[in-house]
Formats: sequence, C-alpha cells, structure tokens
Amino acid sequence: MRTVYVIGIGAGDPEHLTLQAVAAMNRVDVFFTIDKGDDKDDLARLRSELLERHVTRPHRVVAAGDPHRDRAAAPGRYESAVVDWQDRRESIYERMITDELDADGCGAFLVWGDPAIYDGTLRILDRIAGRGAVAFAVESIPGISSVQALAARHRVILNRVGRPFAVTTGRRLADEGLPAGMDDVVVMLDARNAFAALPDTDLDIYWGAYVGTADEVLVHGDLQEVKAEIVRIRAEWRERKGWIMDTYLLRRRDR
Amino acid sequence: MRTVYVIGIGAGDPEHLTLQAVAAMNRVDVFFTIDKGDDKDDLARLRSELLERHVTRPHRVVAAGDPHRDRAAAPGRYESAVVDWQDRRESIYERMITDELDADGCGAFLVWGDPAIYDGTLRILDRIAGRGAVAFAVESIPGISSVQALAARHRVILNRVGRPFAVTTGRRLADEGLPAGMDDVVVMLDARNAFAALPDTDLDIYWGAYVGTADEVLVHGDLQEVKAEIVRIRAEWRERKGWIMDTYLLRRRDR
Repeated sequence: MRTVYVIGIGAGDPEHLTLQAVAAMNRVDVFFTIDKGDDKDDLARLRSELLERHVTRPHRVVAAGDPHRDRAAAPGRYESAVVDWQDRRESIYERMITDELDADGCGAFLVWGDPAIYDGTLRILDRIAGRGAVAFAVESIPGISSVQALAARHRVILNRVGRPFAVTTGRRLADEGLPAGMDDVVVMLDARNAFAALPDTDLDIYWGAYVGTADEVLVHGDLQEVKAEIVRIRAEWRERKGWIMDTYLLRRRDR
Repeated sequence: MRTVYVIGIGAGDPEHLTLQAVAAMNRVDVFFTIDKGDDKDDLARLRSELLERHVTRPHRVVAAGDPHRDRAAAPGRYESAVVDWQDRRESIYERMITDELDADGCGAFLVWGDPAIYDGTLRILDRIAGRGAVAFAVESIPGISSVQALAARHRVILNRVGRPFAVTTGRRLADEGLPAGMDDVVVMLDARNAFAALPDTDLDIYWGAYVGTADEVLVHGDLQEVKAEIVRIRAEWRERKGWIMDTYLLRRRDR
C-alpha cells in the first residue's frame, strides 16, 4: 500500500527538524509540493536546503500549482472559502498520490510548523481516503510550531501555573476579543493587526516575525505601548519581503 | 558569563530530538538533573541514551534530589503548593549554577516535551536571575510536546478551520468543565480521570499514554462509550510501571 507522510519541518529554522523527520524523509520516494504563492520562495528554499542536507536516497520532487483561494471572502464566509479551496486541493493531491506513487510507494508533504496546528494537509488527506479512489496510509510527523519557536525566543512559558492557555486566529480575535476566561492567548494567522484594535489596558504582548530565521524580529511589552511599533514593523517587512509570518502571545497581567 | 540551556527533548521518543537540541547539547559542560521520583527511571534512561548517542564532547552530569512536593494539597491550594515546591527548587538550581559552572561555563536542563508547555524550569531560572546572586544567560530550545505527539499518533489536527483550541489541566477540567466556548480542548496533567466525570454526551476523546514510546497506548471514540476502558487501562499501566504520562484531546462533535 502507498504511504503518505505529512512532515512538520519547523517554523523556519532548518535546525528545528527532528531526527524522526530526517528518518521519515529518507523513506520517501516523492516529495509533493504546492506552489503557495506569497511565501513560495522561502518555503521552497528551506525545503531544498533540507532535502539537500538530509536526504541521502534517490527521490523526486513533484510540484503542482496551488488553487486560487478567495482571501477577500466576506465576513462569515471565511470558513467556506477555506473549505472551497481545500476541495480543489483535494483533487490535486489525489491525482499526485495516484499518478506519482507506485502501489507501494512513499510520498511526503513537508509543512511549516506542525501538521496538527493550523495546517490543513491531514484534513485533505482524510477526505481523499474517504472517497476511496486510492488506498494509502497516512503518517503524521510532529514539528516545532511557530507558537513554540516564539515562546522559546522570548524565553516565556505559554501557561501560568495550573492555568489554561488558548490558541486562536487573528480573525477570531478581531471578532470576539480574547476567548472568555483565557488570560494567555496565542494568536496565529493575523493578517490585519487585530491586536492593535484591542481596548484592553492590562495586556502584555510577545510578538515575533520570521522567528528562528536570519530575519527574526521580536517585540515585547505593554500592548498599548508597543502596538504602533509592531504595526509599523509588520508593514515594513511585508513590503520588503512580500510576505510576513508572525505570531504573538497576549498575556493578561495579574491584578 | 554563564549560559543555561533549557532543552526540550520531546515526549518520550528519542527521535523527537531536534537538530537544534543536539547542537545545543554539544555546547554543554554540565547537565543538571533532578531526581523526579515517580518517573525518574524512564526520564533518566532516556536522558542517558540521548547523551550517549548525541554528545561527543566531554561533559558532566550533576544530580540533585527533588524537594518534596505536596501532591495532596487541598482544593484551592494547588497553585501555592506548586509555588512552594518551586521555591525550594530555586535554591537547589541556584547552587548548582553557582557551584558547578565556571564563570563562562555552559549548563543545561533537559526537560520532557517543550520548555514552554507545562514545565516550570524557565520560571525558576527567571526567579534566580531576579535574585541577582549569580549572573547567567538563558536559552530555551523548543521540543516536541506530548500534545503534538498525541495529535500525530491519532493523525488529528488540534484546531478546526478558523477555530481556536485550548490547553488546560485535569484539575481545571474537574473544577470547571471545558473552557467556555472551546470545542477542542487538550488536557494535560490529569491524575484523577477528570474526563470520566464529564456529563457531556457530544464529546469525542483522543487519548494516549506513553505516546511515542514502546509502551504507547491509544484510545479514540465517543467519550461516554470509551471512558471506562481508559480508566481501566490507566489503572493497569500505573500499577505496572509505577507512573503514567498521558494526555488527551476532547473534541465536541459538530451539531
């Protein structure tokens, strides 16, 4: 039977790779890649570097174009826009698994961060398996997520003693503020500076972009005091590189 | 100046180690260890294995006894029992850093999982630095947490599209149920089967113990249907090994 690995390659630092990921990469016949658009050059560069450094057996790299995604979806339409886009990815992935792998071949998707944290690859593979047109086993290999890279570079712990923490999206934060009862909240995928609109005066922010790479930028402080600086840095870097990958922790100060 | 690394070594599988962790371990003069009590043999064995396999330069291992921790603290006293115990750890760590490291020496603590997720080492080091008796730099090296290992082995994604997830403790779950508004909740440190007392009939559980090790046990299903089986397995394994390390994801089914 075919096997498809989904391998977390970490948050940008090639040294984030685990020994398990290196071992899995050395069982792979075909690496599947998707042209992601805005961050393609950097992901492609990191992927090539990792393959060159760590893969010692013959392998192929098969690329497919990424289907268009409606990033300007109207409010309330975000989930369905993502689902539409994943539908189209589904067909592409199914074709690659069917056409490019031998009946006992081994393929892999290399994903930023961790396959379990705001990445849709496992969901898409699950749906392809459910259609039943091609049989394959799935293996998920965990990787260092940007959440962890951020915490490490700020040398902070995400939770406080005996307390919970949450991970949410910029869109949710913009719509609903911090999740109820949560004083430690990591925010992913915030394209629109949702943090800057929060009225809270008792929050600290630990922000980082391109964490673990040569371009890493970190800012930490009282949200209201540093938010303008973060907005400025985000705009500058997005302009300079054409894309930005950032994450932050919001922490409510103890009263 | 002295440097102290806090290195996440993953959730039990020696292959979880990152290349960054291996590189950091090879800059260390002294590995500090604490006799943890119940899980000491397995952590000690994993640590020895990792040092033997990956560290090529001369180094020492310095062990200190773990201060007593009041695990039977009354309800509402949990946080303060943890804080008391961390106070006592603080003195031990400070002594080790002062006495065992040269003025430009490099020490390290190897911790299960990730230093940023339910581990107190960074907090203790922060407090020692704050006392000012000994100057040192701290570096945190992220590792694969049990949360990620669990998700990988169940091949699930922790979040649903555009939605948040939370990480909490067994004690919080017992006291408050699932955090408000959260339909995807990872539970750590549940010593007392808090999941089994939940009345909810719309939850799935993805449970795992010793994930990533030879003893790995996984259970997945409707919470009400599988909870008795998990309680039984937990009791058996805890009896057999003297300790258990388990984690689970609770996922509310979409209505």
